[in-house]
Amino acid sequence: MAEALRLAAHGRYSTHPNPRVGCVIVRDGEVVGRGFHARAGEPHAEVHALREAGERARGATAYVTLEPCAHHGRTPPCADALVAAGVARVVAACEDANPQVAGQGLARLRTAGIEVASGLLRADAVALNAGFLRRMAGGLPWVRAKVAASLDGRTAMASGESQWITGPEARRDVQRWRAASSALVTGIGTVLADDPALTVRPAQWTDPAELAPGRPVPENEDDVHQPLRVVLDGGLRLPATARLLAQPGLMLVVTVLPALAAGEALHDEALLAALVAAGDARADAATRLRAGGASLLALPPGGDGRADLRALLRLLAAGGCNEVLVEAGAGVTGAFLAAGLVDELVLYQAPTLLGSAARPLADWPLARMADQQRLAVTDLRCIGNDIRLILRPVVA
Amino acid sequence: MAEALRLAAHGRYSTHPNPRVGCVIVRDGEVVGRGFHARAGEPHAEVHALREAGERARGATAYVTLEPCAHHGRTPPCADALVAAGVARVVAACEDANPQVAGQGLARLRTAGIEVASGLLRADAVALNAGFLRRMAGGLPWVRAKVAASLDGRTAMASGESQWITGPEARRDVQRWRAASSALVTGIGTVLADDPALTVRPAQWTDPAELAPGRPVPENEDDVHQPLRVVLDGGLRLPATARLLAQPGLMLVVTVLPALAAGEALHDEALLAALVAAGDARADAATRLRAGGASLLALPPGGDGRADLRALLRLLAAGGCNEVLVEAGAGVTGAFLAAGLVDELVLYQAPTLLGSAARPLADWPLARMADQQRLAVTDLRCIGNDIRLILRPVVA
Repeated sequence: MAEALRLAAHGRYSTHPNPRVGCVIVRDGEVVGRGFHARAGEPHAEVHALREAGERARGATAYVTLEPCAHHGRTPPCADALVAAGVARVVAACEDANPQVAGQGLARLRTAGIEVASGLLRADAVALNAGFLRRMAGGLPWVRAKVAASLDGRTAMASGESQWITGPEARRDVQRWRAASSALVTGIGTVLADDPALTVRPAQWTDPAELAPGRPVPENEDDVHQPLRVVLDGGLRLPATARLLAQPGLMLVVTVLPALAAGEALHDEALLAALVAAGDARADAATRLRAGGASLLALPPGGDGRADLRALLRLLAAGGCNEVLVEAGAGVTGAFLAAGLVDELVLYQAPTLLGSAARPLADWPLARMADQQRLAVTDLRCIGNDIRLILRPVVA
Repeated sequence: MAEALRLAAHGRYSTHPNPRVGCVIVRDGEVVGRGFHARAGEPHAEVHALREAGERARGATAYVTLEPCAHHGRTPPCADALVAAGVARVVAACEDANPQVAGQGLARLRTAGIEVASGLLRADAVALNAGFLRRMAGGLPWVRAKVAASLDGRTAMASGESQWITGPEARRDVQRWRAASSALVTGIGTVLADDPALTVRPAQWTDPAELAPGRPVPENEDDVHQPLRVVLDGGLRLPATARLLAQPGLMLVVTVLPALAAGEALHDEALLAALVAAGDARADAATRLRAGGASLLALPPGGDGRADLRALLRLLAAGGCNEVLVEAGAGVTGAFLAAGLVDELVLYQAPTLLGSAARPLADWPLARMADQQRLAVTDLRCIGNDIRLILRPVVA
């Protein structure tokens, strides 16, 4: 199963919106087939492994990192393929949370007389597909917030001056989180201050050992899946010259319409028409952004007047986003934290002090110690001269 | 030499104001003598090692972590003892910065025909006696500032609520820094808010493996050297009921007298008399504090109106303080940082966020990124659920 997980990880940057899955087929103590899912629309891990095993799959044990699918998607059900190949035993690391599968894959195998077990190395398997499993089970993506701060918890000077807090190694590491994400979320403040491109630049980070063997190593921004770039921009202030608009991949600008009820949303031309009809001052900007290639989305306000972030995440999940990376300033990061929507915080700490006048890591005022957000450290390491912490909020 | 350093470290909590020194005597590839300095007034490391070696010291090599002394202090010069014992070769890890020794110890050995070398494992030897060496060379102690903060760099809520940011393991670890220090410095704000005892409580931290073998393991506050407790208290607001006043060990209250010129200081009864003569409102408080067992010290103001911190450190060094631990709130910690007087920052980070309204790690407003204080990480580890960083300011 450890080998199957290792294989599955080759799909980390490419299976979106599908899960990362690996499969190893063992007969008489010998590995006879290996496979992993590389890309949506291509064969699943089990199919690759069964192909390699051929006749040796008969009577063998298949180790799969995720319960085999039982439904016809873009490919036929893997459970059926395992049955047809005559596999004697299937061990799954975790069950699929997809309601179209959820136990049915294993049940179908069991009905066909195959011995079935699940749970081996479950924690690793769940971690590898945290986004996919959460989207299937709860209709929300896995939300990761990335913050680069000083040891005194500051991200910029009071003036806004902020470039180069962390070193090049940390910035390359951020590229890997971006590449694993289906969408990146930022705020208009960050765009106006830093004019980021928010793209995955493979030349900066790709390690062939991490990628699918036999595939060409991507070199350009066009060679890889570019996550959807989402800008929270209530006032539609995004300039036509923003670098964000000139990059490969899709781009979504999110604004707020107080007239919308909870659960409602307006997209693109419908939103444009509504703005024009209402004589809203944002109509011109909306037209310009549409012409610039951006999609538009209006949501009702959340508790803080900002676009309802939970509604945004539900729409992103419905659009196939497994993992969402929030790369924003103190305002947007604070709003996600305050709404309890951050599943994982990736904190880069630069060994420096920016002083007590500098900007906080997140605009999130708390009054009492009892309000503090405790975190569990899941990883701590040095990256270049910086320190990287991976943290998960502890729910009291 | 590594063994000699290990032996020297047994004196970490007890040699004050002397340096920690270890000695190993080797003859024909065999260790024939070991020693370390345990306590001021007791024999030096070399004497212990020579005693164990006896006649076998003749023709042997002595490894010492610090250049042997050449002057008569409370004990006769160790250089003479090494000569008398017939040692053939002396290897020192580092030279003594004490102007009474500084190269003279090695010179005396060389004159006596002993082969002399120095510099082996120098960095470790210097680190072990950073305070002693700095005091001898520059008349200042080694200043360590301890801060316990959240990952967003906050030490208390805006209301002042602050207890228990870090866990019991980190608090025990702080005890070890206290025990290694000659003086602890705090501010009146911290005293009024938290009423700390600022004592070394051996029961909370002692690890027999760290201490001198054969010595009783200290259990009570009276069994160990208690560092001088220093409170920066310009207004002499320290209450007679403060726990600080009821502890074993000495206590110094530091106030400011603008009438004093740079380099001047007033102590105890002289200060009391000056306050009375000037009709200063602090006279009553000064009388009460003297009666409560505290020493008093008045210094001229530094740049920020607070007592001149560099002058304070010079006086502490003159009084034999090698290592000073600043355990204070954002005000005093910020003042030491702003004055460039922090040699080492010990930062405990609790895995929690206290939010953007909470108090900063140090009151030290900086305007530009160019003003930031870069730090070098010399140690990073987990202590209980917290993270401990040891950092040294990088001088640009």
